[in-house]
Amino acid sequence: MDKNLQVLQGSGETLDELLHGRLKIFQKASGYRFSIDALLLAHFCQLRQGERVLDLGTGSAIIPLLLVRRWEDVKLFGIDIQEEFVDMAQRSIAHNGLSDRIEICQGDVRDIKAHFEDRSFDAVVLNPPYRRLDSGRINRNNQKALARHELQGTLADFLSAAAYVLKRGSRCYVIYPASRAVELLFRMRKHRLEPKRLRLVHSRADSEGQFVLTEGIKEGGEELAVLPPLFIYEAKGGYTSEMEGLFRDLSASSGNACG
Amino acid sequence: MDKNLQVLQGSGETLDELLHGRLKIFQKASGYRFSIDALLLAHFCQLRQGERVLDLGTGSAIIPLLLVRRWEDVKLFGIDIQEEFVDMAQRSIAHNGLSDRIEICQGDVRDIKAHFEDRSFDAVVLNPPYRRLDSGRINRNNQKALARHELQGTLADFLSAAAYVLKRGSRCYVIYPASRAVELLFRMRKHRLEPKRLRLVHSRADSEGQFVLTEGIKEGGEELAVLPPLFIYEAKGGYTSEMEGLFRDLSASSGNACG
Repeated sequence: MDKNLQVLQGSGETLDELLHGRLKIFQKASGYRFSIDALLLAHFCQLRQGERVLDLGTGSAIIPLLLVRRWEDVKLFGIDIQEEFVDMAQRSIAHNGLSDRIEICQGDVRDIKAHFEDRSFDAVVLNPPYRRLDSGRINRNNQKALARHELQGTLADFLSAAAYVLKRGSRCYVIYPASRAVELLFRMRKHRLEPKRLRLVHSRADSEGQFVLTEGIKEGGEELAVLPPLFIYEAKGGYTSEMEGLFRDLSASSGNACG
Repeated sequence: MDKNLQVLQGSGETLDELLHGRLKIFQKASGYRFSIDALLLAHFCQLRQGERVLDLGTGSAIIPLLLVRRWEDVKLFGIDIQEEFVDMAQRSIAHNGLSDRIEICQGDVRDIKAHFEDRSFDAVVLNPPYRRLDSGRINRNNQKALARHELQGTLADFLSAAAYVLKRGSRCYVIYPASRAVELLFRMRKHRLEPKRLRLVHSRADSEGQFVLTEGIKEGGEELAVLPPLFIYEAKGGYTSEMEGLFRDLSASSGNACG
């Protein structure tokens, strides 16, 4: 077996299955592991054939891996500051036979000009790293995660990079903690990434908002569509039918992605 | 009968009943009439005993009339630029025997310093006038309503007035079209009225957001609570049980308000 398709010895990695085994991904056993926010964001994106899409702070490349399965002929790029993540992401991409559709590079979003041309992308995807502090899974690693947050740049750094690489009229998709929605919307407007579509995600119908999903348009005019809220769980437990549909959508192959 | 308690001859006014006849209010038969946004905003406000509260652009004084019924010992003030509204509001207040609890004055929010001291209020209530353009009831009067909008000032003028009259740490309650939520949140932060509590109102569970309700704290820090969404109608028609509860709450007398 190709060594690319194996867990690195002594690396603390796991090889995890997603979407009923149709997608496999290397992750750290401890430290950041993707969670539901990545799935929500991947599902919220609306891509078009032939587009070039950049995932800023791509981590394990979970979002590019999900997007290329769902959308035909899109080309995904990812950038992450941490070498070990970039290496792991590249092995996951190879493992899924998607090396021709996803390119990951190591780099700092604050130095985006060193990596990409201005106005060279049709869409940017953004799950800023400090979102991850809210994940229960990383409670033991908060210090590490905090350090990573400082290391990777602020929300303003990420939005600034997005504004740089996007063409006029192209889109930026972001997920962020609902408790920081004002900060997100304020800074998106400041960076001329006008929020045009917004959706709140609540754990249950009677609970406070957990995430805000938003689509901004570079240099767009003011006019926000607030979508119906998304509830993750039914009151009596179990996923809502909409979440079940979301998992089904993400599992469905676009036809030309590798199964 | 006291002439204050009658509809002005030739004025085009109607005397309308609200809350099962427990509140009566003079309104113009054509032109702006209160609608559900005023009820939503009045219900969203959280007042405390002894507080001084200002309604900017009070119109028919529907919000002060609702608030003094619900909250004990609060003193309500209202300001509106249009003399005929101020006159009508004062007659409604007299009709309900609430003249000792509500004071309305004629004035321009852009000239707030001429009317009120800085940092002299515990809460401000704000249903900016151009919200009203969305009301189906005024379709025939859009030109008039537009003129009034220009006449009464912009959202920034209203927020600036709110920031002036509020004490540090005191609250500003606003309802606004959901389609303009970014504008509202952006400007609230700019005016140092940090949004701390937010609720989206949808006509039905599967429809786009119609209104955004928000509570800002003057000079508050960043931390937003996104409340569960409020749905007005059931899928099969009729008000939701939460809306029925809202009407009940507004109808309930606080004990010392006039019945």
